This record gives sequence, structure tokens and C-alpha cells, in this order.
Amino acid sequence: MRATVINGPHDIRVEQVPDPVIAAPTDAVVRTVLACICGSDLWAYRGVAARQPGQRIGHEFLGIVEEVGAAVRGVKPGDLVVAPFVWSDGVCAFCREGLQTSCPHGGFWGSVGSDGGQGEAVRVPFADGTLVRLPKEAAADPHLMTGLLALSDVMSTGHHAALAAGVRPGSTVAVVGDGAVGLCGVLAARRLGAGRIIALGRHADRTAIARTFGATDVVPARGEEAVAAVRELTGGVGAHAVLEAVGTEESMRTAIAITRDGGAVGYVGVPHGGSAGVDIGEMFNRNVALRGGVAPARAYIPELLADVLSGAIDPAPVFDATVDLDGVPGGYKAMDERSALKVKITF
Amino acid sequence: MRATVINGPHDIRVEQVPDPVIAAPTDAVVRTVLACICGSDLWAYRGVAARQPGQRIGHEFLGIVEEVGAAVRGVKPGDLVVAPFVWSDGVCAFCREGLQTSCPHGGFWGSVGSDGGQGEAVRVPFADGTLVRLPKEAAADPHLMTGLLALSDVMSTGHHAALAAGVRPGSTVAVVGDGAVGLCGVLAARRLGAGRIIALGRHADRTAIARTFGATDVVPARGEEAVAAVRELTGGVGAHAVLEAVGTEESMRTAIAITRDGGAVGYVGVPHGGSAGVDIGEMFNRNVALRGGVAPARAYIPELLADVLSGAIDPAPVFDATVDLDGVPGGYKAMDERSALKVKITF
Repeated sequence: MRATVINGPHDIRVEQVPDPVIAAPTDAVVRTVLACICGSDLWAYRGVAARQPGQRIGHEFLGIVEEVGAAVRGVKPGDLVVAPFVWSDGVCAFCREGLQTSCPHGGFWGSVGSDGGQGEAVRVPFADGTLVRLPKEAAADPHLMTGLLALSDVMSTGHHAALAAGVRPGSTVAVVGDGAVGLCGVLAARRLGAGRIIALGRHADRTAIARTFGATDVVPARGEEAVAAVRELTGGVGAHAVLEAVGTEESMRTAIAITRDGGAVGYVGVPHGGSAGVDIGEMFNRNVALRGGVAPARAYIPELLADVLSGAIDPAPVFDATVDLDGVPGGYKAMDERSALKVKITF
Repeated sequence: MRATVINGPHDIRVEQVPDPVIAAPTDAVVRTVLACICGSDLWAYRGVAARQPGQRIGHEFLGIVEEVGAAVRGVKPGDLVVAPFVWSDGVCAFCREGLQTSCPHGGFWGSVGSDGGQGEAVRVPFADGTLVRLPKEAAADPHLMTGLLALSDVMSTGHHAALAAGVRPGSTVAVVGDGAVGLCGVLAARRLGAGRIIALGRHADRTAIARTFGATDVVPARGEEAVAAVRELTGGVGAHAVLEAVGTEESMRTAIAITRDGGAVGYVGVPHGGSAGVDIGEMFNRNVALRGGVAPARAYIPELLADVLSGAIDPAPVFDATVDLDGVPGGYKAMDERSALKVKITF
């Protein structure tokens, strides 16, 4: 089959690789229907996150089950399924309590020795624990399929940020970052009943999506200027719940600064700024909590899926460009240059 | 009157100072009956936290109301009262929601221009918002009075750590630090129904108190050795709820390392290590939350008071030495040298 590999910084290729096979009785092989490129893939693309030359890449996909191992019970060939961005065994203590990202048998697509999502097919370990079945009828609706693809990571991650920040009905919420995860955070906050949602972002096309997703205010600024603007919008006190969806030192500093005393930052931006932006003295004095991390998408997909199917939420607009497999290297370039927000890959 | 002042590092004196007077109609003057020295006072004593020469010190006291301003309704002369370590107006949004430490009119005893707790009397701003009445009969019971004094800070702070760490019935809890706050954290965790409480501390006399307070295990180690020991005690996964009651880089690093994935560190040690111990990458990967800060003792005192009065909790054993006002400088020395755990001051 053909799959995307990363050979080094800015060197994304589509190459012939071995076809996936059932290696363990709990495996499934999924033929990819849709995949996409994640903002976090750009850390590898830019050489900030190390990868071995030739490593697969991509961790968001949905597809059709092609083959299952002898022990798989929950899915069968022909099923339409979506995969969360981490596989997990589904039976350990962490999986049972909904923190599948801490499953001792879990792993990330594209890690060394595993398939990535940006290829024609994927060997899925622990298929019963990992995959979520989708209604077959969805396959006939391209817009719906695009929304369902978002469950794999960005919508689930936005939801994780909103839960971690403690969004409740009526909360004043601020979202730092206008990437796909930030936008999904806006959608998740609205879904949880936020009374006011302030989106921080400097890209007018993205904050326009934020408004359709439920943002009541937009702050097109960064750093101290953004902090001042949010304080002004909130009577000087900041937002109860702040979603941090960037992962830099500056974004973390901003997120903490705009959190109301006693509130929380829900952070899901993969941290690339170290702890320097975590002002523990300020957090201490104002009882600002910091909560979040890698989102257990597998725990959230069933609940969010129902809302995507009903139309209660529609994350599809975060995808603003589409490529086929051969177009993947160009898709990375477009996202790196910010000419695309999030690139969908069709097979 | 006479009160304790700090003139510089290691220079604590008892001096003649002006008698407190009612300066605002919401003030009260309280004649001190009991006060104490806090571990956090040692940061000033050691010169780590800056103080102006001659500044008052001490933020924990209980006493008898001597005089009240015209607007005070909740307390009257002759009432026995305890003060939380921060005063607050009692009427703002933060006070109403139980985060009195963020009251815009609040302040710390001993801050420039205010009285400290380690003196014969204290001018109390916003007496109605700040003071909590105690039953007069308590005055006849020295042991009970000592326990009530702990409500002013250490018991309330330990409770804050336990709440912030998310201690629930059955939780596995670890407490980093065997100072008075850490010990009170053990007591608070037991009160909240923790199933197992691991106390980390290297002072046998202190961890002996931890055991009487409810610790089921003691780890007399620090750093990597402590982390390994807690992991071994918890089947390799760590504790659901970790109370950080020290405030150094190493203690924070240890606290995060011994928290179970998905759990929380409740931190109340005044941070003196900067953010270096806050390993945001580890927190992210394992969904470890960081929550806490300066404890809103005023919010907790009524609830904890009931349990001290009933005997359900008895924090009095954290005081292992008693001095009179003239003995305060010696009390600081004893705590600094760790020959005393926490020094009570009688008047």
C-alpha cells in the first residue's frame, strides 16, 4: 500500500510500504476513507518534535474494517469506524475509567513500528478497545463524514479542554488559539452551556468560524494586549474557564493571566514552551488551576458522535482544504504556511 | 502595646508599638489570646521573602473582641473569635463564592501598615467579613483552644490542599511534607474519607503525628527515592490525590511524579522554587492536574470548627512548643533549626 512517511524536517513523502496484516488476534485492518493533518503533526514537520527518518505519520482517520483478528468481537469487516488518535486495550483500569491515553498497552499512530493514519490502510491494535463504529449511512453524506473525522482528535481534544477548564452552564469562557482545536474548544464550550465565549485569535477567517461555533467575542491580539482586552471584556476579573489550545510559553502565560481567580486553565496544546509560561506564583496567589493534557478521545467519541449525528454540533468547518494522498506533502506545506487551517485527506 | 516586628533576616524583636484603634466603622480590635509562628513566616525570617525593617509579623491568632466600629454587626466586645490569615470584606463576589483570599479589599496580617498576629492586640479590618465567633466555653479548655488556633491557617490550608487534590472517599492520597500543614493535610484527607494516606517526611517525630492523624504509610525519603517508594506502595501507578505542602522545586517535582495519571496535585506550599519543578510535559502526557494556592481559610473555618468542637478532628498536636511574647524570637530560632514543629504563643 501507499502511506505518508516523514524523512526529516519539511520532508514528507508518500511511499510504497508493506500492507498491514493481522499480527495479533486483537488487531483489525482498516482501509482508510478519510484522514487529515493535525497541527501537532507540524511540530514533527518543523523538526521541533524528533522523528526517525521513514517513520509513518498521521493519527486521525476513519475507514472501513477490512479484516479482524480471531479475538475481535466489537467490529467486523465492512463496518465504518473512526479511530481515536491513541489506541488502547479497552480493558485496563485506565481504559475503564475513561483515561485511555494512559492505557499501558496503548500507543500513538505513527510511532515507530506502527502504521500512521495518513496511509491507505492501518493495522489497529486492540480493535475492540480502540475503534468506534459509525452508522453505515453516514458514508453517503460527505459533510457528515467530515464532521465525524473531527472526532478522531480535534473535536475530542476541544471537549477535553472545555471539561478540564470546568466549563459549566453560564460560564464565561476564553479560548486561546484559533487553530482547529481552539475552534473545536469554542464548539465544545457552547455545547456545555457557556454563557459567553471569548475567542483569542488573529486570523480573521478562523475567528469567523469561531463566531459560527458560538464565540460571542473575538480578541485579535496576543500577549499583554490580549490580556488587557479580555480583562476589559470581563469587568477586570478574567474568564472562569480558559482553554489553552496552542502549547507555547506565551499562550500558557496568556491563558493563566486571563483566568479569573479560582478558575482553571484547560490546556491541550502540546507543550513546547517548557514550564516557563506556567507562572506558579500567580497561580498560587489567585488559585488558578491547570488541568488537561492529551485528550482521551476514545472516552468522548460515543457522546460527541451522537451530537454530530443529530446535528447539534458540526465541526466540519475546521477543514478548509482537501487533498488526495499524493497531495499530502502540499497539505503540510499549506498548513505550515497557514494558508490552510486543517487539511482533509480523501482516499 | 507590645508586638513582634521583623527588622531583617534572623532579626525578630518584640517592641512597643502604638495601640490599635478603630480606624474604620467596619473595624474591630481584638485582644490576642493565642497566636503562633508559621512555616511561611520562616521565609521572611530567612530573608527569602522581603520585608521592610520594622514590619509586623504573624498571621494566625485568636482572641477576645475588645472594641468594634459603628458598622460591625457580627461580633461584639467580649466575643471569642478566630481570624483567618487573610482579612476580607465578606460581601464581594469572591467572598460570597468562598474565595475570600481574592477579595479586592482583603489583605494579609503583617503587611505594611497593618497589625500582625504576633502581638498583644490586632486591628481587624472588615470584622464582620473576617472574624469567626467561637463558643465562649472553649476558653476554659486549653487543648481545644490550641486546636481552634489551627483553624486560622494550617488546618484550613491542609483542608484546601485535600480539596484541591480531589480527595474523595476511598482515594489513595500522598502528602509531601511533614510540616504542620502537611500533617493537617493528612488529617483533612482522613476527614474526607481517604482510603489510604502515604505521608512523605523524614522527621520521625513528625511522621509519628502523621500516623496518629491517619497516615497509613510513611515514606522517609525525598526526590527519586521517595518517588520509587510511593510507586511501589501503589502498584506502580501513584496516588490519586497528592498534597504538596512544602513549596520547593524538588517537592513539586516529587508531587507531580507520584500522582496517578488523571489525578491531581493540591498545592499549598508557598512556591519558592519558581516553575522549574512543574514538569508540564509530564503533566500533559499523564493528565496530572495542578490546583491549589492560598487557602480561603475564612470559607472553611465554620465547617472545620464544628469538627474541632465535636472532637472529630484534633489538630492541636501540630503545636509542640509554647512561648510567651518575649519568647517569640526564640520560637523562630527553634522552628528555623527544626527543633520545634510549630510554636504556639500565649498572652
